[in-house]
Amino acid sequence: MAHALSLGRRGMGRTWPNPSVGCVIVKDGRVVGRGHTAPGGRPHAEPQALAQAGDAARGATAYVTLEPCSHHGQTPPCTDALIAAGVARVVAAVEDSDPRVSGAGFKALRDAGIAVDLGVCAAEAAQDHAGFFLRQAEDRPWVTLKLASSFDGRIATATGESRWITGPEARRLVHGQRARHDAVMVGAGTARIDDPSLTVRDFGAVAQPVRVVVSRLIDLPLMSQLARTAREVPVWICHGPDAAQETRQAWDGLGARLFPCALSGRQVSARAVLQALGAAGLTRVFCEGGGTLAATLLSAGLVDELVGFTAGVALGAEGQPSLGAMGLDRLRDAPRFRLAETRAAGADVMHRWLRV
Amino acid sequence: MAHALSLGRRGMGRTWPNPSVGCVIVKDGRVVGRGHTAPGGRPHAEPQALAQAGDAARGATAYVTLEPCSHHGQTPPCTDALIAAGVARVVAAVEDSDPRVSGAGFKALRDAGIAVDLGVCAAEAAQDHAGFFLRQAEDRPWVTLKLASSFDGRIATATGESRWITGPEARRLVHGQRARHDAVMVGAGTARIDDPSLTVRDFGAVAQPVRVVVSRLIDLPLMSQLARTAREVPVWICHGPDAAQETRQAWDGLGARLFPCALSGRQVSARAVLQALGAAGLTRVFCEGGGTLAATLLSAGLVDELVGFTAGVALGAEGQPSLGAMGLDRLRDAPRFRLAETRAAGADVMHRWLRV
Repeated sequence: MAHALSLGRRGMGRTWPNPSVGCVIVKDGRVVGRGHTAPGGRPHAEPQALAQAGDAARGATAYVTLEPCSHHGQTPPCTDALIAAGVARVVAAVEDSDPRVSGAGFKALRDAGIAVDLGVCAAEAAQDHAGFFLRQAEDRPWVTLKLASSFDGRIATATGESRWITGPEARRLVHGQRARHDAVMVGAGTARIDDPSLTVRDFGAVAQPVRVVVSRLIDLPLMSQLARTAREVPVWICHGPDAAQETRQAWDGLGARLFPCALSGRQVSARAVLQALGAAGLTRVFCEGGGTLAATLLSAGLVDELVGFTAGVALGAEGQPSLGAMGLDRLRDAPRFRLAETRAAGADVMHRWLRV
Repeated sequence: MAHALSLGRRGMGRTWPNPSVGCVIVKDGRVVGRGHTAPGGRPHAEPQALAQAGDAARGATAYVTLEPCSHHGQTPPCTDALIAAGVARVVAAVEDSDPRVSGAGFKALRDAGIAVDLGVCAAEAAQDHAGFFLRQAEDRPWVTLKLASSFDGRIATATGESRWITGPEARRLVHGQRARHDAVMVGAGTARIDDPSLTVRDFGAVAQPVRVVVSRLIDLPLMSQLARTAREVPVWICHGPDAAQETRQAWDGLGARLFPCALSGRQVSARAVLQALGAAGLTRVFCEGGGTLAATLLSAGLVDELVGFTAGVALGAEGQPSLGAMGLDRLRDAPRFRLAETRAAGADVMHRWLRV
């Protein structure tokens, strides 16, 4: 199952709106087939692994990181393929929360005389498929928030200098994180000031995540990197209902996809943004700030995972804070996270946290 | 030598102005004697280890974390004791930088026909004795700065609530750090607002570090915990030349020791404070903030080690920053540190850095 999970992780960020599933077929103690959900979500992991196994699949055990689908969607049901191949046993990590599957896959297999075991590496699989499950349950994608700052939580000097606070190894990890998410998201301020391309670099030829900018009035330069490359790598803009018609048309003309979202106070509602992105199929979003968008997401309880990079540099109180205002009076109201992992990342510290 | 180093560390914080040395005597592959510098700095490690070894010291090898002293100070020279005991070989980690010793100890041993090896675990020993060496070289103690903050570098909410941002395991590590330093130091603001006792708790019966407060005008309540306990555990106050005579007398009457220090701008000079503490014998100082004192020390390049505790909680930009203003314009002028260690400390992340 550990091998199946690692196969499944290879597809992360490229199978949305489908989950990235891994499948390993074992016969007489030997791996005879491997597969993971293909980019775009099809074909699924199981038929690929079965094709690789060929006749060896007869009487074999299939390890899958998610309950095999039993409905006729855009592909035939994986349960049919497993039954037809003559698999003797299916070991699954977790049940599918999709109401069209949810236990029906296991039932179909058992009805065909296949032994089914559930729950092996369940916690890891639940984490890997968390975005897929969250989209089913709450109509929104999983949100990972990245904050890279100085020792004292600053992301730039008072004069705006921010290159580079963290080192090359931390930046490389960030590109790896981008690649494992369906989309990278920033606020309008970051898009204006940093003029980022938000692409995955130095990882060979990879599918690029969607680039999302949240900007109430679409206050973004039309000569920015995002604008100039919107036809090569998708740019999605979540804006307020009061964004000017001409601006919308200009970005539409550049190839961007526009999502009108409700306001919450004076800002675009974070929940509305995520629901729009979920409706568009995204299951995993990697938010890279800035401080205002990050604080808005945190305040709304919409951050599922925090990834911090702390550099061994002190910038002092005049530096720009990593998080904007959150309007908290009491410590007990502050959003809390539990530590999942910490380690050195080159010259910096990487720490990863999950929502409590 | 690793064993000798660990013995030496047991005395840290309690031997100032002397270094805390460890000594292990090995005869025929067996440890026959152990010692480390006693609290107060005397007796030294070697005579204690030799006394434990007795006749077994003859022909044995002595491992010491620092060159044995060869001068008549308040104790007879350790070289004489090693020679008299008939030790065949001395393995030392580092040379003593004290001009009264500095190579003379090794010479005395060699002149007596004892084989001397130098440099085993030299880097570890140099780190352990760094405060002792720094006091010789720069007339000031080693400074460890602790900052415990939220994920976004805040030490309290806007309303001042700070208990507790980090968890019990991080606080326990802080008490352990206090115990391994000669003194704990805070600024006046922290002393006023938190009313801390700054003692080592929950570590059994340990010698308490000196408690140092930096306050230009000695603006500290006379009913504070520090004031009420100044006769039990030393309280040292580093103040400006303009502190009122009556205030000085009041604190003197409470049992505090007063150190007049020059100003730098409108604040007590950080360098003057450390030179006063060095002259008074301190070799290792643990600074616990607040933000103003921490920023002053960092700006002056007087922080040798940074210990950070990061909690998985977000407080937002209105929260109180861990560091005060540093007046930095350019990123390249910011003080940089290299990562020495990072790990989980209960629910928080501990990260330790050394000056570049």
